[in-house]
Amino acid sequence: MKLATIRLGDRTAAVRADGDFLVDLGLPDVGAVLAPAGGLTAAATADGPRYSAAEAVFAPLVPRPGKVVCVGLNYRNHIKEMGRDLPEHPTLFSKFADTLIGAHDAIRRPVETEAFDWEAELAVVIGRHVRRADESEAEAAIAGFTVLNDITCRDWQFRTREWLQGKNWDSTTPVGPFLVTADEVGGPRPALDIRCEVNGQVMQRDNTGDLLFDPVDLVRYISTMVRLGPGDIIATGTPGGVGHARKPPVFLRAGDTVVTEIEGLGRLENQVVPEGER
Amino acid sequence: MKLATIRLGDRTAAVRADGDFLVDLGLPDVGAVLAPAGGLTAAATADGPRYSAAEAVFAPLVPRPGKVVCVGLNYRNHIKEMGRDLPEHPTLFSKFADTLIGAHDAIRRPVETEAFDWEAELAVVIGRHVRRADESEAEAAIAGFTVLNDITCRDWQFRTREWLQGKNWDSTTPVGPFLVTADEVGGPRPALDIRCEVNGQVMQRDNTGDLLFDPVDLVRYISTMVRLGPGDIIATGTPGGVGHARKPPVFLRAGDTVVTEIEGLGRLENQVVPEGER
Repeated sequence: MKLATIRLGDRTAAVRADGDFLVDLGLPDVGAVLAPAGGLTAAATADGPRYSAAEAVFAPLVPRPGKVVCVGLNYRNHIKEMGRDLPEHPTLFSKFADTLIGAHDAIRRPVETEAFDWEAELAVVIGRHVRRADESEAEAAIAGFTVLNDITCRDWQFRTREWLQGKNWDSTTPVGPFLVTADEVGGPRPALDIRCEVNGQVMQRDNTGDLLFDPVDLVRYISTMVRLGPGDIIATGTPGGVGHARKPPVFLRAGDTVVTEIEGLGRLENQVVPEGER
Repeated sequence: MKLATIRLGDRTAAVRADGDFLVDLGLPDVGAVLAPAGGLTAAATADGPRYSAAEAVFAPLVPRPGKVVCVGLNYRNHIKEMGRDLPEHPTLFSKFADTLIGAHDAIRRPVETEAFDWEAELAVVIGRHVRRADESEAEAAIAGFTVLNDITCRDWQFRTREWLQGKNWDSTTPVGPFLVTADEVGGPRPALDIRCEVNGQVMQRDNTGDLLFDPVDLVRYISTMVRLGPGDIIATGTPGGVGHARKPPVFLRAGDTVVTEIEGLGRLENQVVPEGER
């Protein structure tokens, strides 16, 4: 099953993909679908108005997640390109909900950065409350997966020893277009090709099977400290090929088009626009 | 003016302190007071049921802030005890709303930590939306101040190079009891004695005038990247005297009582209880 949150005038609606159509589920967003126990099951059979999928305008998949937890340094080849050793524990940081934009929305490039970079990521969407999960609880807590690009201001990321300020600029993180349930991609540890293109040039290409800490590992680890809940998002980290690590470095400029695609999950396509010009 | 969020049975209520009484403002919490423009002004004169202040049970001051931004390394003497140079920029990390507890709630010490530490902090409460604030906009965006203790699992903080996982355990961060408006403490850059006691022994003692980046600086800096909004909280960092930096180190155990007090703002008193025992 594939679910999305689309914009309809001044409201949003949760929809289920059905061939060339999107079926309105009568709820405002995918977060509201996941909130009640059994929400995904109900969504599988709910009926309502149908919209053309080709004309859909996607909102952030979950507009107001309670938590967006991000993982750094999780593909073996990206760890190497950043010059680090393989870690014993996942490195975690977080994003505010205001960073999130829809699958085709403009990425706002702040005037304050000179080093605006891409990070294609597999994102886990949590389907139920879970704390101190064991392996089977962690598997069951994963509703499915989506695509996310953790667009980063590298200069601000490295201003201090904490990454937050490189990763939390408003309206910089596309997420979507679909929540694809785990059963559609081979279960809770999917091995899917992941790719990022800038202006048609492939910049990142890897497979989510290369993750050092897989989605189940991450739910177990993160839920040790926090109760994860329906609609929470875990961005699992990015593979090699970021602009910062290229020689010479390459960064995003206004007018660039960033495509982020994961096999079986879908595709983000976002134009970079300037923001904050005075 | 002093506002709080108190528990009344299974609901919460925003209240205004009036001598020995708390006046019910007809709203669920201080976040709801701040949300509309003019909310603070309306709160100053609103009338409603009155409760005994002595019997109040405080909820987290703002139960679901959109953002809790925390600052590391911001008192000159704490920077020195951690062995660091004075930084050019504030170091920022964040907390999830689920970390927050009320002024007298139990602090839940996870079974997974061996290094549970205190960090008394002045917290800024934001009163209006602000992005890329200049100095006067930053001053105007500060509704007031409260007391927060950024209780930290040091062992988890230093597992990786990002601090998040030491700082985000559920139900570990007391905040409150009151939002005290800036006019009551000399304006948006208050110089107030701050103190943390564990079992009656003074562990931290400083003055918020020693902050390297003051509240107005922080609103300016943080609002460069994100739009701050009503109810958002900025924890401004902790002074010297944390348990981790003592020789030998001292950490919190179940049964300990932590008192966190700031002159003119109020006092948190929290008992440490074990959590997660299997």
